[in-house]
Amino acid sequence: MSELISAVEAVDVRFPTSRELDGSDAMNPEPDYSAAYVTIRTSAGDEGHGLAFTVGRGNDVEVAAVRALAPLIVGLPVEEVLADLRGFSRRLTGDSQLRWLGPEKGAIHMAAAAIVNAVWDLYGRRTGKPVWRLLAELSPEQLVDLVDFRYLQDALTRDEALEILRRAEPGRARRIEDLLKHGYPAYTTTPGWLGYDDEKLVRLSKEAVADGFGQIKLKVGADREADERRMRLAREAVGPDIRIAVDANQAWGVHQAIDWMAALAPYDPYWIEEPTSPDDILGHAAIRRALAPVKVATGEHTHNQVMFKQLLQAGALDVLQLDASRTAGVTENVAVLLLAAKFGVPVCPHAGGVGLCEMVQHLAMFDYVAVSGTTENRVIEYVDHLHEHFTDPVRIRDGRYLAPAAPGISAELHPQSLEDHRYPDGPVWSAETDG
Amino acid sequence: MSELISAVEAVDVRFPTSRELDGSDAMNPEPDYSAAYVTIRTSAGDEGHGLAFTVGRGNDVEVAAVRALAPLIVGLPVEEVLADLRGFSRRLTGDSQLRWLGPEKGAIHMAAAAIVNAVWDLYGRRTGKPVWRLLAELSPEQLVDLVDFRYLQDALTRDEALEILRRAEPGRARRIEDLLKHGYPAYTTTPGWLGYDDEKLVRLSKEAVADGFGQIKLKVGADREADERRMRLAREAVGPDIRIAVDANQAWGVHQAIDWMAALAPYDPYWIEEPTSPDDILGHAAIRRALAPVKVATGEHTHNQVMFKQLLQAGALDVLQLDASRTAGVTENVAVLLLAAKFGVPVCPHAGGVGLCEMVQHLAMFDYVAVSGTTENRVIEYVDHLHEHFTDPVRIRDGRYLAPAAPGISAELHPQSLEDHRYPDGPVWSAETDG
Repeated sequence: MSELISAVEAVDVRFPTSRELDGSDAMNPEPDYSAAYVTIRTSAGDEGHGLAFTVGRGNDVEVAAVRALAPLIVGLPVEEVLADLRGFSRRLTGDSQLRWLGPEKGAIHMAAAAIVNAVWDLYGRRTGKPVWRLLAELSPEQLVDLVDFRYLQDALTRDEALEILRRAEPGRARRIEDLLKHGYPAYTTTPGWLGYDDEKLVRLSKEAVADGFGQIKLKVGADREADERRMRLAREAVGPDIRIAVDANQAWGVHQAIDWMAALAPYDPYWIEEPTSPDDILGHAAIRRALAPVKVATGEHTHNQVMFKQLLQAGALDVLQLDASRTAGVTENVAVLLLAAKFGVPVCPHAGGVGLCEMVQHLAMFDYVAVSGTTENRVIEYVDHLHEHFTDPVRIRDGRYLAPAAPGISAELHPQSLEDHRYPDGPVWSAETDG
Repeated sequence: MSELISAVEAVDVRFPTSRELDGSDAMNPEPDYSAAYVTIRTSAGDEGHGLAFTVGRGNDVEVAAVRALAPLIVGLPVEEVLADLRGFSRRLTGDSQLRWLGPEKGAIHMAAAAIVNAVWDLYGRRTGKPVWRLLAELSPEQLVDLVDFRYLQDALTRDEALEILRRAEPGRARRIEDLLKHGYPAYTTTPGWLGYDDEKLVRLSKEAVADGFGQIKLKVGADREADERRMRLAREAVGPDIRIAVDANQAWGVHQAIDWMAALAPYDPYWIEEPTSPDDILGHAAIRRALAPVKVATGEHTHNQVMFKQLLQAGALDVLQLDASRTAGVTENVAVLLLAAKFGVPVCPHAGGVGLCEMVQHLAMFDYVAVSGTTENRVIEYVDHLHEHFTDPVRIRDGRYLAPAAPGISAELHPQSLEDHRYPDGPVWSAETDG
């Protein structure tokens, strides 16, 4: 009898990060980094782990969304799932009733991401490979078979995608070796949270440079005068050669973004991230035209490949920041990486939160080995929080992510961490309620 | 002591419409029309009813989303809420943790819609007016105060919105009188569901004309040959002077939409609705350029005002089909109506489902009285299902919606209907499980 998916479990896990104002920005003053944490089990006793990241309240809705999707896949033969991962994604995102909650956006799409990532984790464990390497060793034909081209063909055809992948094929072995030796460049958001005072900003900025980072990021958008002061202090702290990105987390309208950034221009910002509504493709394009050579970056809230397609078609982006669990996981992100390569736009994944660094490193490394073939102007976001809860945490050395070696997608939580942070009944939370 | 919002209740209610294939289309073969049904209660014993429509599975996720929002508003003074409905919407859609599930899209945004509509229902009941009339009797200043202009100002400023409303002001009394006398034009989707056979299609098409409708709609997109045959039969049944709209429910890619519609062109389709992904603004614009003079219509899955803004900026639309519970209810729809008026695009609301006809008629009638000032090329969708479950059902005469007279937004279900269709414990569903 063939091996079946026997269970899809979802746990509401939350970390009380708001107590320290880690992660504070213009739109997220007090996040509690959280996850709908998914475990997929098979009838042979294998498992895979994935998660959808949220920032606290509403994580229960995300868990409910995973549970709504679970009946679609429990009972499927594992080999069939792994042999047709495009079909598997379409089963999750195309269910004729559940898709009404999206389609392909919001809570239901993020739930699909958590499940898809858990299946890729399972796939990696069965092949004994970290997911970046598993992907990087698939043939160009196998990779394009992951892509749902229905809504993409006016921007990227199957043949064009194949050509991109074939062009990168000869250098794969050399780039894998390079990755294993040198890792992948990172930048750090640790110094720049809005809730930190000036002294902490300056101290952490200097530490970042000492730690080997070539780029840091500051949160902006709440107070213009404070932004100018913080940007000046950061520039003085790091000197002229370190890139400083700024991130408004959607705080502005289109004209407001252009005005506000003019005030920061003297301090040489490298990119402005999420200057306005993440849905505003044409707005981002207008902002980019007005602010060049300052770059425009977005993507962490871009909810699917159709939105990324348009951001690229409209010339709205200099930097594409894909997310591990906003679009529907690894499978849809392969399409996003191919779109970015077609349009020549570098991908610098969004990370931080909980488990995002762990997951996106696989996507960026796959991109380097088998898609774009370069790390030029590419960096993975890094935030130094919550890694200790993972069984295969990211490893950073000299401002670079070292390539993960363990099989899977690195999203597995330590059993004790999971137990402690279950919401609302884990000890971290029940203690708070009792106190 | 001031009157407070004392409770926000959400019930999972589902109608087993899939048993008859009512509502079947290219993407929704077997919908069970459902709603997260919301009742808001006040400490003085007042109540308001609203709902978010879904098509079956996942309605529990929608209910969970309403319950996640409820703590944000329970305990608020009613007078404060009604005096600042823009602020009330922003409280629901801008919560720093819950907005991560959107932002402003998907399950969490639809949950906000159900609550916002329930508050408008409460407002209507307190003033003794149906919501269309309540809106139509607000001053231009009160109406623009409902609009959140943050992300709209590059397309519509507060002053422009005021000018639109002031221009329509002198004719309000005359148009109210006209509405009360003649109602508002409708079109019917009843004949054209994909699950109906040719005989039923022809019979219902003829009945629609006999009933006074000037426009019908056919579902297309699953089978090209069948679509040509059905379109030909429908055209023969209704003659050359009745408009026939077609609706692909997102089935096609951009080029595919253009090709497929070429095959239907000989039968003079009036508009093509949802030809491709509802997120594909630039795709809709390309399709519109290719297919003119056939019109392009979309909106029922357009998740917020930022997306509508861009559809209009990009010239992607001939017909804007707002929805009662996809965007965040009446308040956000006021902004959408103003955007449409600015760009000169007629609004023909999406309806059908359960309770959508009941709610959108208020928006279209308000548009006529106080915004666009016309019903030219404007029709409200009509489907003749499930109205018997509402305490104030729509009334159709000679192909027109009669103006509702009861206070509120017409979304209240009969207590018995609610009891019978509760999922999964109501008798309609528990009987099925037992059988």
